[in-house]
Amino acid sequence: MKKIYIGIIGFGNIGSGTVKLLKKNFALIKKRIGMEIHIKRIADIDVKKNRGIKIDRKTFTKDAEEVINDPKIQIVLELMGGIHPAKEYIIQSLKKGKAVVTANKALLAEEGREILKTALDNNQDIYFGASVCGGIPIIKIIREGMLANRINYMAGIINGTANYILSRMEEGFTFKQALIDAQKKGVAEKNPSLDIEGTDTAHKLVILGSLIFNIPLTLSNIYTEGISLLTPMDLKFAKEFGYVIKLLAIAKENNGNFQFRVHPALIDTKHPLATVKDEYNAVYIEGNATGEMLFYGKGAGQMPTASAILSDVIDIARNFKSKTCMRIPPIVSYEKSYKVIPLQQLKSSYYLRMMAIDKPGVLAKIANILAEYKISIASVFQKERNKAEAVPIVMMTHEATEKNISTAIKKIDKLPAVKGNTVRIRVENS
Amino acid sequence: MKKIYIGIIGFGNIGSGTVKLLKKNFALIKKRIGMEIHIKRIADIDVKKNRGIKIDRKTFTKDAEEVINDPKIQIVLELMGGIHPAKEYIIQSLKKGKAVVTANKALLAEEGREILKTALDNNQDIYFGASVCGGIPIIKIIREGMLANRINYMAGIINGTANYILSRMEEGFTFKQALIDAQKKGVAEKNPSLDIEGTDTAHKLVILGSLIFNIPLTLSNIYTEGISLLTPMDLKFAKEFGYVIKLLAIAKENNGNFQFRVHPALIDTKHPLATVKDEYNAVYIEGNATGEMLFYGKGAGQMPTASAILSDVIDIARNFKSKTCMRIPPIVSYEKSYKVIPLQQLKSSYYLRMMAIDKPGVLAKIANILAEYKISIASVFQKERNKAEAVPIVMMTHEATEKNISTAIKKIDKLPAVKGNTVRIRVENS
Repeated sequence: MKKIYIGIIGFGNIGSGTVKLLKKNFALIKKRIGMEIHIKRIADIDVKKNRGIKIDRKTFTKDAEEVINDPKIQIVLELMGGIHPAKEYIIQSLKKGKAVVTANKALLAEEGREILKTALDNNQDIYFGASVCGGIPIIKIIREGMLANRINYMAGIINGTANYILSRMEEGFTFKQALIDAQKKGVAEKNPSLDIEGTDTAHKLVILGSLIFNIPLTLSNIYTEGISLLTPMDLKFAKEFGYVIKLLAIAKENNGNFQFRVHPALIDTKHPLATVKDEYNAVYIEGNATGEMLFYGKGAGQMPTASAILSDVIDIARNFKSKTCMRIPPIVSYEKSYKVIPLQQLKSSYYLRMMAIDKPGVLAKIANILAEYKISIASVFQKERNKAEAVPIVMMTHEATEKNISTAIKKIDKLPAVKGNTVRIRVENS
Repeated sequence: MKKIYIGIIGFGNIGSGTVKLLKKNFALIKKRIGMEIHIKRIADIDVKKNRGIKIDRKTFTKDAEEVINDPKIQIVLELMGGIHPAKEYIIQSLKKGKAVVTANKALLAEEGREILKTALDNNQDIYFGASVCGGIPIIKIIREGMLANRINYMAGIINGTANYILSRMEEGFTFKQALIDAQKKGVAEKNPSLDIEGTDTAHKLVILGSLIFNIPLTLSNIYTEGISLLTPMDLKFAKEFGYVIKLLAIAKENNGNFQFRVHPALIDTKHPLATVKDEYNAVYIEGNATGEMLFYGKGAGQMPTASAILSDVIDIARNFKSKTCMRIPPIVSYEKSYKVIPLQQLKSSYYLRMMAIDKPGVLAKIANILAEYKISIASVFQKERNKAEAVPIVMMTHEATEKNISTAIKKIDKLPAVKGNTVRIRVENS
């Protein structure tokens, strides 16, 4: 029986989960792949913390180099997160002739090209299935299962924290209440900004977009807007118009023109993504042969992420057994010409919500400004009169350009009767 | 640039779709995998029918042996369907040292062991992703993406025809009307019996169940019941109780005890499978690491099936390029001991619907019979009185055994006030 030796750098929640899962399903995996996967060394700053797993103390080291330089270790799992020194550890491992598995989406989004290039130059496999959507094997699906398809459109709910918060807000929680609830449940981190401001979603979109379209995407190509300014009132109004609000990662191609966006969006309650609740993730993809597809599951958490990491380890182990590597190359030579459309050129329908003092003529003034910018109103909803306070005016527009909407909103927000800033949420139709 | 030559046996809807898709995405696939896939020969009984694709006439032959014996052909695509001579062609191809791709679920369900064993003995790859769920790469997901998981439960809507018919019946169509509509739309075949009686679903369940649990399943292990006896009334009542009715393929494991069933089932409207409409397929799987997952898309049709076939061709081409084969073995040695639980031992809740003449005491008699067999009623619904005709009595039971339900129903159906047979539909909770 062939034995595969792995080394782990980073023994936090994900690292210890991976070890737990390997121990739990060891015999099953061995039977399925005809190989044994053994953990040779584990590096972590804190080697004394009890993680609830029985491991020989000699397995642990504080020094990642001991993992990287161990001649028996064939696969290094980088599970520490962060940019430095994770990047350096990965590059050293590849140069030492080891395959690498990483779950580090931020690193891949920011330094992915150099890392993948190093793997290619050193003829070493690097797999990163756990970097996007945890247990959902979306990267395998894109690089293998749907490879015969041209994909023109993808929309994903790929941040469980944001989706959990929005699910609570649908039930009437304010953003703050929902965030606190998420933190209590362990669904949001103490510092939740990466998740709620859309940055984590953008990291993952860089990875997925690069793979789907074979272009060298960077974070700067992605318009990113988070969910922290949404109110339960907007989710309620959206529902009345037949929509739910989700934080989406969108990738779209039209004749060599690309769009990459992360923002809250209204989607029809009948859209397959609309029923994705709580911390679940889902990716909706249209292939030119398959038509519409949806892949749904837990996008984060200890065990789903461990599942993705071990499935990558298994892929590499199978490559070892087959005496091959680079079977799925980390990079295909990128498309030479591509154009990312700036957000201002986007055409979309919009949900607009203003708070206005209910005086005669206010709605007319708003409507005039919209007309001036060729924005036509599909439907409008105004709350009952309330002379003292500002009341919400809610509108759904027909298709308009982002540029015109932005300019119109600026003008509307200067009207004396309009209080605060207009809330604008894009409507997403696949 | 490496060239791969394929031969196709069977140039009907799926065969011609595969050629169409290969032509359409040829350059894209070439770029992605660094190889060109060329069609060397196509065998079909009818070589003259216009399929709307430009192909050199010399490519065609009426003789499948010419494909199998062509020394240049590396991969044979068996797309003719049926058991014989498809089986013989596949076995000959494998013995001739060619890899095989097949979409033939009936053949795999009935003769899969011999075919896969032949592949193994001849050290040739055989891929069959198109045999289940068309465009959804469910076989790849089970054999690769979720391989680190123990799977204890799967429930799938894996027959598009049946799901389309049920979707129309939800709107009030009778079974017959829905079937005619499906035939008009090209979603059902002229002879729809394989689809509506659950046989096609059972074929696919044999394939999925064998892979998930690593046991040598046969059709005889699968309880199979179709949808032709359902009425729109039952779908309506189910809805009132908070359920939809779907034709499910169910695979379940509990301590080495297995269940495999194909039958219409009530599922909660909040279950991820409940929103799957029309001809769409979806597979719901619980992994012991991932938790619940759902994979959704088009399970049949020319282009989705072609996508699956070409993705298998690509997998094999990548094996060629990597100078390997059997990277994903067609069979792992099967589990030695396993037990398939007979249906009579199933524990489930049930939907029961009787038609009864509304006389005093009828409900009491029915309730007494159920009590005698330890079946307790969770809720009951009886239509308004109508002395002349039989009216429906609808019940949801608490958990009971299939054996007791069956015996009770037989007794109930003998009551003079009860007309026709009691309709019994199992409730499926994951």
